[in-house]
Amino acid sequence: MNYIVGIDIGGTNLVLGTVSEDGSVLYGLRKEPTRAEEGPDAVVARLVGLSRQAIEDTRAADPETKVIGVGIGSPGPLDRVTGRVLITPNLGWTDFPLRDAIREALALPTALDNDANCAVLGEWWRGAARDTQHAVGITVGTGIGGGIIIDGKLYHGFSEVAGELGHTTIDANGRLCKCGNYGCLEAYAAGPAIARRAVEALRAEVDSSLPDYVSGKLEALSAQIVYQAARDGDQLALEVVRETSRLLGIGIANLVNIFNPEVVVVCGGVTMAGASLFDPLRQEVRRRAFRPAAEACRIVPGELIGTAGVYGAVRAFLDQLDDGLISGMDDA
Amino acid sequence: MNYIVGIDIGGTNLVLGTVSEDGSVLYGLRKEPTRAEEGPDAVVARLVGLSRQAIEDTRAADPETKVIGVGIGSPGPLDRVTGRVLITPNLGWTDFPLRDAIREALALPTALDNDANCAVLGEWWRGAARDTQHAVGITVGTGIGGGIIIDGKLYHGFSEVAGELGHTTIDANGRLCKCGNYGCLEAYAAGPAIARRAVEALRAEVDSSLPDYVSGKLEALSAQIVYQAARDGDQLALEVVRETSRLLGIGIANLVNIFNPEVVVVCGGVTMAGASLFDPLRQEVRRRAFRPAAEACRIVPGELIGTAGVYGAVRAFLDQLDDGLISGMDDA
Repeated sequence: MNYIVGIDIGGTNLVLGTVSEDGSVLYGLRKEPTRAEEGPDAVVARLVGLSRQAIEDTRAADPETKVIGVGIGSPGPLDRVTGRVLITPNLGWTDFPLRDAIREALALPTALDNDANCAVLGEWWRGAARDTQHAVGITVGTGIGGGIIIDGKLYHGFSEVAGELGHTTIDANGRLCKCGNYGCLEAYAAGPAIARRAVEALRAEVDSSLPDYVSGKLEALSAQIVYQAARDGDQLALEVVRETSRLLGIGIANLVNIFNPEVVVVCGGVTMAGASLFDPLRQEVRRRAFRPAAEACRIVPGELIGTAGVYGAVRAFLDQLDDGLISGMDDA
Repeated sequence: MNYIVGIDIGGTNLVLGTVSEDGSVLYGLRKEPTRAEEGPDAVVARLVGLSRQAIEDTRAADPETKVIGVGIGSPGPLDRVTGRVLITPNLGWTDFPLRDAIREALALPTALDNDANCAVLGEWWRGAARDTQHAVGITVGTGIGGGIIIDGKLYHGFSEVAGELGHTTIDANGRLCKCGNYGCLEAYAAGPAIARRAVEALRAEVDSSLPDYVSGKLEALSAQIVYQAARDGDQLALEVVRETSRLLGIGIANLVNIFNPEVVVVCGGVTMAGASLFDPLRQEVRRRAFRPAAEACRIVPGELIGTAGVYGAVRAFLDQLDDGLISGMDDA
């Protein structure tokens, strides 16, 4: 069987594995800290080593293994055509030829796409958005990214930078976002914003167990801890999660009115909040979006926890191969 | 040459004409008040009469004329597949089989699409967005509608109701919109909202010539009058136009970050405000959108003043014909 190495480069972790070209099996899954501060060359060297191990695992499991390429999902902005990562605030890399560095080291045709695009593409291929033609996904983590599937393909826009769904204004006079705009969805509902709203709420309200989770060090509060406390029944944490639902609901209602998608997949750590997030979120979308669009659309958590980006990177390779965007090794 | 009758049903006017299938000529242009209160049957009867006149004009101009079909742009929501107009708040029609009524009267294959979709499609085919693959248009009139062109085709979404670009929240806690949501772009920047903001500004500021345009009857103030006064140099009117630029700029920056389009076309009466609107609007978009997306995107007024909907309805017919969505007269 033909396999493709899928690499998901996150701000925190590198995740990779090999996926069969029909998407049915994933072998050799590996995960380790990114340690971006070591610089891109060191990270690439580790990725190459991990990829070789994953390929060996795959050969051990399936003697007929043929590895035909590599797909990489990376924070961006990046240029799919030249394969360069332009700027990555979370990694600190600038204008780095990531695709060709991996391609030359592994001697395999290689494709690059944006990490959020890959996560959404993975969910579309093998996860919560499978069997749809029109899907939208948002990834809620350190930032809020997005991916748009139209007619069963990732939409990249005119100059390859479409899908910045976290950087849409939901409050014209709102909080400054790190992108320079005011009132972006990301400034309210990404992980750090969730933690910050919890800290703000704690200033007004003392009856909460949240400080106990971080031994009173509020600067250590994270969105994950807020979700945990909400699951444990802390009322203040539940209120922060409900407000997160409302804010994400505004952003998602906008996407529902714009795209009339069959499904909106919400990926990332925020899905840990479970029904306490998704129930009010769906309610907010129904309250705000046009009824025919809202009724047509499922809003669901991602299913491929931890591996959506790997599956998506592999699918991005296959799609770029189909589109003639991948040069063979002889042209390299 | 083959011609198609293009019909644009507006809340105020009916506009129609015949357009050659290559889009190069428009004959028999006709415009008259809609008078929706007469009911859909009476309006259809007039449309049929006007269409026959337009077809005669076309035959007089081009003896080789062959009329192959009819395209209709109508306020919606509507169902392209069944050809029914579901609800039209501005016309007061409910579940009316508009397409088949016209098709049977004219005995020609007929297609139906949303009016805003048609206006944007017209601008893409023959106007300000021609020669692009990815374009977004908004129509600013009594409401704010939109159309999305992806890979050179109108995007309709999963259940045919995509593109409600005026009903995206730009202010989470903002004004109630007539769609039931709070803070929609339409609630701030459509014609009636522009007039209302002018009236609100006049309450705080007496040094304006705006009341003179309506003999002191502020309830008669319209967006058109605000644009006229701004062109005449009235400072308060200019301030209202600038604020309109800022508000439209927020909505358009969102579309730029989401779609990374090559061009955003702004259609409708608001284009009358000219550079006093467009210059600050472009500035606001540059200030708010990601630089690579903002730099890639032209923001321009529509060019087909009064006829975009006619051209677009014709193009919608041709596209639906290509897509096999139009049944021949024998199947009717």
